[in-house]
Amino acid sequence: MKKYNIINWFVVAVLFFSVAGCTTNNKGKAKGQTTSTATIDPLPSWNESKNKTDIINYLVAVTDKNSPDFIPVKDRIATFDNDGTIWSEQPAYFQLFFAIDEIKALAPQHPEWKNTQPFKAVLDNDMKTIAQSGERGLLKLVMVSHAGMSTRKFKSIVKIWADTAKNPTKHVLFTALVYKPMLELLIYLQANHFKTYIVSGGGLDFMRAIIPELYGIPPEQIIGSTGKTAYDYNNGDPVIIKLAQLDFIDDKDGKPININKIIGKKPVFCAGNSDGDLAMMQWTASNNLKSFMLYVHHTDSIREWAYDRNSHIGRLDKGLDEAREKGWTVIDMKNDWKVIYPFELEK
Amino acid sequence: MKKYNIINWFVVAVLFFSVAGCTTNNKGKAKGQTTSTATIDPLPSWNESKNKTDIINYLVAVTDKNSPDFIPVKDRIATFDNDGTIWSEQPAYFQLFFAIDEIKALAPQHPEWKNTQPFKAVLDNDMKTIAQSGERGLLKLVMVSHAGMSTRKFKSIVKIWADTAKNPTKHVLFTALVYKPMLELLIYLQANHFKTYIVSGGGLDFMRAIIPELYGIPPEQIIGSTGKTAYDYNNGDPVIIKLAQLDFIDDKDGKPININKIIGKKPVFCAGNSDGDLAMMQWTASNNLKSFMLYVHHTDSIREWAYDRNSHIGRLDKGLDEAREKGWTVIDMKNDWKVIYPFELEK
Repeated sequence: MKKYNIINWFVVAVLFFSVAGCTTNNKGKAKGQTTSTATIDPLPSWNESKNKTDIINYLVAVTDKNSPDFIPVKDRIATFDNDGTIWSEQPAYFQLFFAIDEIKALAPQHPEWKNTQPFKAVLDNDMKTIAQSGERGLLKLVMVSHAGMSTRKFKSIVKIWADTAKNPTKHVLFTALVYKPMLELLIYLQANHFKTYIVSGGGLDFMRAIIPELYGIPPEQIIGSTGKTAYDYNNGDPVIIKLAQLDFIDDKDGKPININKIIGKKPVFCAGNSDGDLAMMQWTASNNLKSFMLYVHHTDSIREWAYDRNSHIGRLDKGLDEAREKGWTVIDMKNDWKVIYPFELEK
Repeated sequence: MKKYNIINWFVVAVLFFSVAGCTTNNKGKAKGQTTSTATIDPLPSWNESKNKTDIINYLVAVTDKNSPDFIPVKDRIATFDNDGTIWSEQPAYFQLFFAIDEIKALAPQHPEWKNTQPFKAVLDNDMKTIAQSGERGLLKLVMVSHAGMSTRKFKSIVKIWADTAKNPTKHVLFTALVYKPMLELLIYLQANHFKTYIVSGGGLDFMRAIIPELYGIPPEQIIGSTGKTAYDYNNGDPVIIKLAQLDFIDDKDGKPININKIIGKKPVFCAGNSDGDLAMMQWTASNNLKSFMLYVHHTDSIREWAYDRNSHIGRLDKGLDEAREKGWTVIDMKNDWKVIYPFELEK
């Protein structure tokens, strides 16, 4: 798959910007004042708006040693949901399309699937029944279909799929449907020495096959839903084998539980787009250090998709109310983002 | 607790040594040749021996860009067992003494413990019965006694204990019984841009309360055995609550399983001291990149303890055979280590 070139020059630009920012700070810029973005804009795909200014002001405040809001590097933990927050999730979670393609490919070896749900629905292209099974149903679909396979083999299958599979609505590679503004935000945080994690309800092995190359986030900073696995010595060529049993769903309360288990620190920055991210937002907001909670609100029915309170996928209802009540940042995709997908720039 | 001062000047010294090493390499030093340790020795508590030379030669080979064994920084993952590998584990796992102290303190609130095992054994000081319950029994003891407590509260209890509790045999703080040569090795690896992880059968929350300050390893690089937890919004002051249910035992096959789940990469370097580390050693040895497997063999009955094949704690039997068969490094504590505990230098 293609890693967008924007990433590389951004790293350079944003690193430069950071250093420039530090120098400016040392010269006694007033606290809370926005660093000038006239020369190098760390978030060029974002329209000038209060939300953009709030993000930049936050980063300036927490990285300035003389600020009362300064956060030591070791505590700069940022957690990002993935589906609907960094890449699209319509007309269904991308991993569902992978699972459907896989089940169709594996069906000849499993004649019993013709009469067993949820496999029957997949083979009948009955998207309604599949969609109703939700994230848990999707994970079961993936787990059962790949039980007995090594994680190594699974990874190679996902990679091949990601290089060719296209979104049925947008007719481009699924991997092309990443949000450029969010990639910029990740890089901006990284340049300011934040450790950026993905904390997603999506399958861990699926994400790890795609995300490191696509977003530049290493496997050890990707947290997701898991099936149980087993270790097999395999005559000296050890493998980890995927089992057909659910281990953990990294969604809702599962997000702070997994963040606590795997990271062991409260984030100071988090981003999400659905009620499934609300517990992570609350957990982040309770940090004694200055924290930043960001909801991506899907408001652009033309360039992306528009949905919130009544969507089966990525429902944002309680989260939207709580964000407004508590003054968390709610990104209006239509109005806050100049560009959504990187390929828009190529047109 | 006290963080040994040796750590700070070592970081400086070893970083300097690394840079000096690079410069030397660029001037065309022959491959496989040991870098001179005459000026600054990265492992001063180690006697000059083949094992020390092998470690240094490995680090030189994998960090030299011109070496066929060069390992990119992103793949420099090192995993260390804890009990018996970085600190002592006699006359029993240190966490067992914590659990005993805790159960005795909590006993007045639990009159039923007087007649329920394993609590009865603890209250009767029946160490034999307790020891026979093994690591799994110990974990259950800790979990049940702290069920319903927040991880935040648990951490503060462990910290207070670690600041005062003494080893019954050595009559010093448990936290004083860390192996200086292994702390040096951790720092030496870190200075060469290795990401060093603890991967231990010990309880995750217990270790995270002590290890970050004592070894300089951050919470997100500590992997251990876990009980299940729950998220509680707690009227806007969210907490993670410890439940009385086992989640995962990070021992034996559990080590590569957890390494795969949490890190998502095979280590290139690992250290352990018991058969519980054997699967991790095999997993590391199967890396396509040049790997280093190190067993700590407890051979010093005077300065530390001597035990291996017949010990209930830290049994090293199959692992010792496999290490010798495959040429892995086996540290002879008595002969390889000039100093074992940091306090020896204060005498």
